[in-house]
Amino acid sequence: MRIEIPREFERLGAVRIYGLQKVYELDAGPELNPPARDDAVVRSLSAEAIYEVQREMAIVVPVRSERLKLIEGVLVGIPHPCLVIVVSNSPREPTDRHFLELDSITNFCRFTRKQVLVVHQKDPLIAAAFVAAGYADLLDESGLVRDGKAEGMMLGTVLARIMGRRYVGFVDADNYFPGAVNEYVREYAAGFLMHGNDHTFVRISWHSKPKIVEQSLYFAKWGRSSRRCNRALNQLLGHFTGYETEIVKTGNAGEHALTVELAMSMRYATGYAVEPYHFIDLIEQYGGITATEHGDMRRFVRICQIESRNPHLHADKGDAHVADMIVGSLATIYHSRLCPVWLQREIDGELRKDGFLKEGDTLKPVRVYPSLARLNVDAFAAAVQSLVAGRIGAPIVSIATVR
Amino acid sequence: MRIEIPREFERLGAVRIYGLQKVYELDAGPELNPPARDDAVVRSLSAEAIYEVQREMAIVVPVRSERLKLIEGVLVGIPHPCLVIVVSNSPREPTDRHFLELDSITNFCRFTRKQVLVVHQKDPLIAAAFVAAGYADLLDESGLVRDGKAEGMMLGTVLARIMGRRYVGFVDADNYFPGAVNEYVREYAAGFLMHGNDHTFVRISWHSKPKIVEQSLYFAKWGRSSRRCNRALNQLLGHFTGYETEIVKTGNAGEHALTVELAMSMRYATGYAVEPYHFIDLIEQYGGITATEHGDMRRFVRICQIESRNPHLHADKGDAHVADMIVGSLATIYHSRLCPVWLQREIDGELRKDGFLKEGDTLKPVRVYPSLARLNVDAFAAAVQSLVAGRIGAPIVSIATVR
Repeated sequence: MRIEIPREFERLGAVRIYGLQKVYELDAGPELNPPARDDAVVRSLSAEAIYEVQREMAIVVPVRSERLKLIEGVLVGIPHPCLVIVVSNSPREPTDRHFLELDSITNFCRFTRKQVLVVHQKDPLIAAAFVAAGYADLLDESGLVRDGKAEGMMLGTVLARIMGRRYVGFVDADNYFPGAVNEYVREYAAGFLMHGNDHTFVRISWHSKPKIVEQSLYFAKWGRSSRRCNRALNQLLGHFTGYETEIVKTGNAGEHALTVELAMSMRYATGYAVEPYHFIDLIEQYGGITATEHGDMRRFVRICQIESRNPHLHADKGDAHVADMIVGSLATIYHSRLCPVWLQREIDGELRKDGFLKEGDTLKPVRVYPSLARLNVDAFAAAVQSLVAGRIGAPIVSIATVR
Repeated sequence: MRIEIPREFERLGAVRIYGLQKVYELDAGPELNPPARDDAVVRSLSAEAIYEVQREMAIVVPVRSERLKLIEGVLVGIPHPCLVIVVSNSPREPTDRHFLELDSITNFCRFTRKQVLVVHQKDPLIAAAFVAAGYADLLDESGLVRDGKAEGMMLGTVLARIMGRRYVGFVDADNYFPGAVNEYVREYAAGFLMHGNDHTFVRISWHSKPKIVEQSLYFAKWGRSSRRCNRALNQLLGHFTGYETEIVKTGNAGEHALTVELAMSMRYATGYAVEPYHFIDLIEQYGGITATEHGDMRRFVRICQIESRNPHLHADKGDAHVADMIVGSLATIYHSRLCPVWLQREIDGELRKDGFLKEGDTLKPVRVYPSLARLNVDAFAAAVQSLVAGRIGAPIVSIATVR
């Protein structure tokens, strides 16, 4: 992969948010001998270097009733060195869709010898493991893990941790282009190679999203939600730095990866707020604005943003979710203890003007889960041992001992 | 890349046409030590092995007025080890579009240090080189190379030859997904790795082609032309083997690669007939059916067909070309000296029934250029020396001495 170095960054305490990085080649080829002279502004990352990172990476694929053909295509796109963790929340009744997923993935793994771990979000054993690990926050009244992609992502993160991986990345299961999935995972590796493997967060900004407009395709750059979400996050940043900024381009980025260590230290919002809340949590914890839990300002948290080259074409879920996404994203900024009153007023006004908040309604806070640092990893690992060992697609993986 | 071995093949003299091969992983990772135990039916091809082939490969990109953004995306997708040859036939007046292409590609190469050779099909120097090389067949009355993608592809092939490459592959300049381009070029390498680098021809069958149907996307598998073209080619094959077959899936495959040695020995049809004529020429020359120019039946020509995993989404050129494509494809089969009378009748009947041939019209033969074996490579190389050296994007390439 050949990729430009970031041109700028915004700093807030220990948090650095880097400007969007452009990709010049999906595949820069192998290591050269002697090494290629690096350009001042563009770095060439060899296949070997990328594989080295991917060998320590788990890719979590949250699944909920996506077509099996689509899920298989996503697996085809994930580079072989990565461990794949499929967290399914597909219904088991009246048709046991999860059984079909398991069958199809097992068959696929027979051909690829891919390392794939498949779990179901509603498995009682998973719920019991969260209880045993002292982190019952994810469970609902029925005693099982709550529905929701955010909850699935948290479960995937914990599994990546007990499998001994250093990095965890996320890709959606409804992507029509395996080549786009392949690109995202390369970019995750590129981000860690360029920004270090300590407290780095890599977020992908889609090149474009093809939309059908009057019987032809229009490649839209910004969605209705990300436009608003990015603006509000940038306003919040600008409030503290004193400079207006457009640095944040990935407020809603579902495609992202981070070090497992960082992931285990973060708090998570639910629903559509999960991605923008990453920014809020990191700024609240490491931004150095108010007295924080994390005093160590020498450990930089680097948020790196990469613009993918493939358009993003996924299964069409209709428009109903966009309103929820807008409200969820903005609520998470509105309810941050760092959000100034003027920005709260602006968000509230915008939501009312555009009909997302009705007369008399108030913007509800989103549920936030405490940091996974509270979770006893050893206890969780012990509790899921049988499940993890039994459900692996390829036989060569075993649960790594906790690092 | 992880890819199945072909399950079957059809044999006609020295020509072997292999069944469609399915891809299981776009990226199978690096060479393992000790090497991975290969499955009986699926082969894992390491990144190192693929790069080794790509280092000897030229990728020809025929260009005609495609948007610069699209062309750049295609270059982003071509793996770095490949030499890129852009053969443009974009208009130079009233706007000099070729100048804009050259400027944009030069700028791109500044960031990537990619080896790109850009030529214009109508360059008088190119025409003079064909004359000097004793192959004036490509020129029209004005003394320049004729318009047409086939002519551009032949020019690209000759340039690949004088640049000393062993393989030549083709990708279209109007592909929206750099990741799909990347996949095609990996599959070219995979084909040569699996079938040898002697007389191998790799053809890609698109996974699907998204079409807009009533405001949503439908992933069609077979185009209107390829359906007819493949059927007629299979009928021709079946006529000689005595067994009905569906082996040919890539009659119209624009995405294909072959050894330069094979490419230099072939005859080429023009227009939309160029791709199906590959089959006709190889069967006529190597099929062992009638007395042929090539007597050596011990040199197998292997046609390998790979099913890509990415859908093919390219710029919409409207439907007008489909009729030409159908007529051109079928004409090339109809006019083969091998085509039996019953198949000629069937093709003629089909074209009349469906309105492609009007009352009183006859199916015109397509122009066929003689084999490039006639071309004096040294003379061509000498004539284009200055042009090639002067127009290269990266400074590190020089014309290789003729092998």
